[in-house]
Amino acid sequence: MYNPQLNSHGELAHLLTIEGLPARVLRQILDRAAEYVTAGEQGVKKHNDLAGKSVFNLFFENSTRTRTTFEIAQKRLSADVFSLNISASSTAKGETLLDTIHNLEAMGADMFVVRHSESGAPFLIARHVRPGVAVVNAGDGRHAHPTQALLDMYTIRHYKGDFQNLTVAIVGDILHSRVARSQIHALTTLGCPEVRVIAPKTLLPRDVEQMGVRVFHDLDEGLRGVDVVVALRLQNERMNGALLPSANEFNKYYGLNEARLALAKPDAIVMHPGPMNRGVEIDTPVADGKQAVILNQVTFGIAVRMAVTSILSGARA
Amino acid sequence: MYNPQLNSHGELAHLLTIEGLPARVLRQILDRAAEYVTAGEQGVKKHNDLAGKSVFNLFFENSTRTRTTFEIAQKRLSADVFSLNISASSTAKGETLLDTIHNLEAMGADMFVVRHSESGAPFLIARHVRPGVAVVNAGDGRHAHPTQALLDMYTIRHYKGDFQNLTVAIVGDILHSRVARSQIHALTTLGCPEVRVIAPKTLLPRDVEQMGVRVFHDLDEGLRGVDVVVALRLQNERMNGALLPSANEFNKYYGLNEARLALAKPDAIVMHPGPMNRGVEIDTPVADGKQAVILNQVTFGIAVRMAVTSILSGARA
Amino acid sequence: MYNPQLNSHGELAHLLTIEGLPARVLRQILDRAAEYVTAGEQGVKKHNDLAGKSVFNLFFENSTRTRTTFEIAQKRLSADVFSLNISASSTAKGETLLDTIHNLEAMGADMFVVRHSESGAPFLIARHVRPGVAVVNAGDGRHAHPTQALLDMYTIRHYKGDFQNLTVAIVGDILHSRVARSQIHALTTLGCPEVRVIAPKTLLPRDVEQMGVRVFHDLDEGLRGVDVVVALRLQNERMNGALLPSANEFNKYYGLNEARLALAKPDAIVMHPGPMNRGVEIDTPVADGKQAVILNQVTFGIAVRMAVTSILSGARA
Repeated sequence: MYNPQLNSHGELAHLLTIEGLPARVLRQILDRAAEYVTAGEQGVKKHNDLAGKSVFNLFFENSTRTRTTFEIAQKRLSADVFSLNISASSTAKGETLLDTIHNLEAMGADMFVVRHSESGAPFLIARHVRPGVAVVNAGDGRHAHPTQALLDMYTIRHYKGDFQNLTVAIVGDILHSRVARSQIHALTTLGCPEVRVIAPKTLLPRDVEQMGVRVFHDLDEGLRGVDVVVALRLQNERMNGALLPSANEFNKYYGLNEARLALAKPDAIVMHPGPMNRGVEIDTPVADGKQAVILNQVTFGIAVRMAVTSILSGARA
Repeated sequence: MYNPQLNSHGELAHLLTIEGLPARVLRQILDRAAEYVTAGEQGVKKHNDLAGKSVFNLFFENSTRTRTTFEIAQKRLSADVFSLNISASSTAKGETLLDTIHNLEAMGADMFVVRHSESGAPFLIARHVRPGVAVVNAGDGRHAHPTQALLDMYTIRHYKGDFQNLTVAIVGDILHSRVARSQIHALTTLGCPEVRVIAPKTLLPRDVEQMGVRVFHDLDEGLRGVDVVVALRLQNERMNGALLPSANEFNKYYGLNEARLALAKPDAIVMHPGPMNRGVEIDTPVADGKQAVILNQVTFGIAVRMAVTSILSGARA
Repeated sequence: MYNPQLNSHGELAHLLTIEGLPARVLRQILDRAAEYVTAGEQGVKKHNDLAGKSVFNLFFENSTRTRTTFEIAQKRLSADVFSLNISASSTAKGETLLDTIHNLEAMGADMFVVRHSESGAPFLIARHVRPGVAVVNAGDGRHAHPTQALLDMYTIRHYKGDFQNLTVAIVGDILHSRVARSQIHALTTLGCPEVRVIAPKTLLPRDVEQMGVRVFHDLDEGLRGVDVVVALRLQNERMNGALLPSANEFNKYYGLNEARLALAKPDAIVMHPGPMNRGVEIDTPVADGKQAVILNQVTFGIAVRMAVTSILSGARA
């Protein structure tokens, strides 16, 4: 099967989605990230992998948080970093998306990190860039958010060693979550034998079971005996919407609290992609509790984005 | 004649307009740019010319595209780069333009790149800065856009070798175009024997013939036998305005298409300052055709801005 | 007394307010700043003190001017610099201030520079950051603006040598000025024997005399024989407000003009934190006159912010 993310040698050329990436490539990214984590613990934050390279962060959808994590990763690799809020500039002048991309390529862009509200936009760009120019999907519509899924995998591997015997539960709005979709693909690719999704019917995609997951509608039942709990962020626009009676109601049935977490294994870890709605999908005692590894996810996220950036740039390839 | 752009040794001190610059200085910039282009082709993007220097991009008029090209050039020369959207800050607090400039000078500014909707603003600033501080005009009102004209000259020289035997046609809204004005001055200074402007009467300055150009109102007639065609961007605010019936009407009479381009020399090149209005001043088959050098202009534009920045900073002066 | 700004060795750990800082620490900052000023005069602008460190400028209140001075200082020390406009991002997504801070810490932040409209916000942050992470107050509500006061002290020491025999007058809206409050603390700590405040009753805090100052309501009387005059900026929102009849009226009674300045010592210096309202708190002949050291304050301000940044980062500690 043709995979636009891999070059003819089977190496990563773009990071667009977890779907279709071989376990070998996922592990290469996690292993490289581990090197940066180790270096960081030894006080070495800055590397030269991207020295002299120009990276463009193209955020067609605003996300200060995600943009900042990519900028940190890029600057720690010594790249020249340019972040553009595209809606406010050339597309407003009637230039097409591809004209913008070709112009930035002509300026010497080596990599594009793309966030877009429309699913597939990073693929469109990847199909049209010159050989040697890499595209990273930093979140497209409801489709994918591969670096988030990779940092989650890093976190799980860090705390649990391997995926072969794990049960992982993802709780919340699976339907609208590009994070959940990417996580499920990553977990199954890496050999996780049981991935559970826990959500009301209204917040689940219709074909979710075909992704290889077990579906639970009852939180207590779904959490029983799991090694990893991932609480998803409930998007503000979903609260009090048609699919959901209210944020309070969601918390009552699907909010992660201490009593419910006690149903999981005693050493289960709690993850969240952030930013958290405390008191909605997660209660504060859990969010700040000793099983939570939410801030560690953030730390690992920088290393994972450094790894992706470095691998795509061909540094040490 | 006093020229505020040259110092007492006849060297470039500010780049404010092409008008009045000797051919010697224009060629110095093009030659320096050629060095950066060559280095880039050899994989060397980054230089140290501006290491430790502070460059301020003062955009009183928003232009992400132009600002980005300057930032890329500056960072590739290792400058410390600070881009300020001035309307949103101190002038809003009632500080005068010159107080702002003097404050930034006191902070250690070495160079100001200025974009302003009012013609002459960069001159005002250049008159008041300390010796050793350089000012670059990145577009002022309808007046001048010298780095755009210089990158156009670089492109023409790159493809045509010299200006001595060339016929160059500039098509479109000459009246409101600071680009056209700067191009005409550059071409005549560099010895181009025939510069044509092709436009309806309503989009031509009244005194345009005094600039040393031949005027055509008929596109077919004007294109016949030319070596270079420059299609100007039709500003959105002109379309459907008093001077012009509509964008469609403009395209019908002045849009560059394949049939018309066939009237030029077979090896004629097609240029455009970007961003293009496809289907208005230029049709897609021409914009993406093999005579188009529009993306090459963008690439050369970075090198030309690096050259201007480096020369003005006194690096290797 | 517990001072959250000092570590257990009595060294500066955060810079939150001048209040409570020993003269020893203030002098350490001024001495370090002097080193950067000297280096700058010798053409060395760039230093490596912060190489590999990540500094976050968190501006909850917009101030391009102050943010730019910090960014310049940080980049000249080779830090990786990230400036976030927080209101526009995660707090808008319902994340708490401390969640934002903990996330940025997890991303590897070494220092936070915080500007906030609420007094005390930088203290709250400083109380919750990890050991080794430093917080700098870049202005909080009406409370404090310590780097501004430090650059003022640097300026006074530069021109007057020492504080032991000086009379310093601060003129204008003391009530709403975090600058004035910080200046008074710094001057008394450094041994200035006479600090005068000159203002109408409506623009003075009720307990101002307890800060160790002499109060004057008459400008002529207050200026007589002083060595240093500090004109405060009259905030736009105060003009034509309830506390003040009008900007013109303020200028008539409290505006610094040449006639009034003549009442001070002949070698008195004139300072202003900027940006100036010319014709309101200060007239142009004084602002641009030979006793004014207002632009020198700006220059010294960069060096002082470099000194604070370097000391807090533990460079050469």
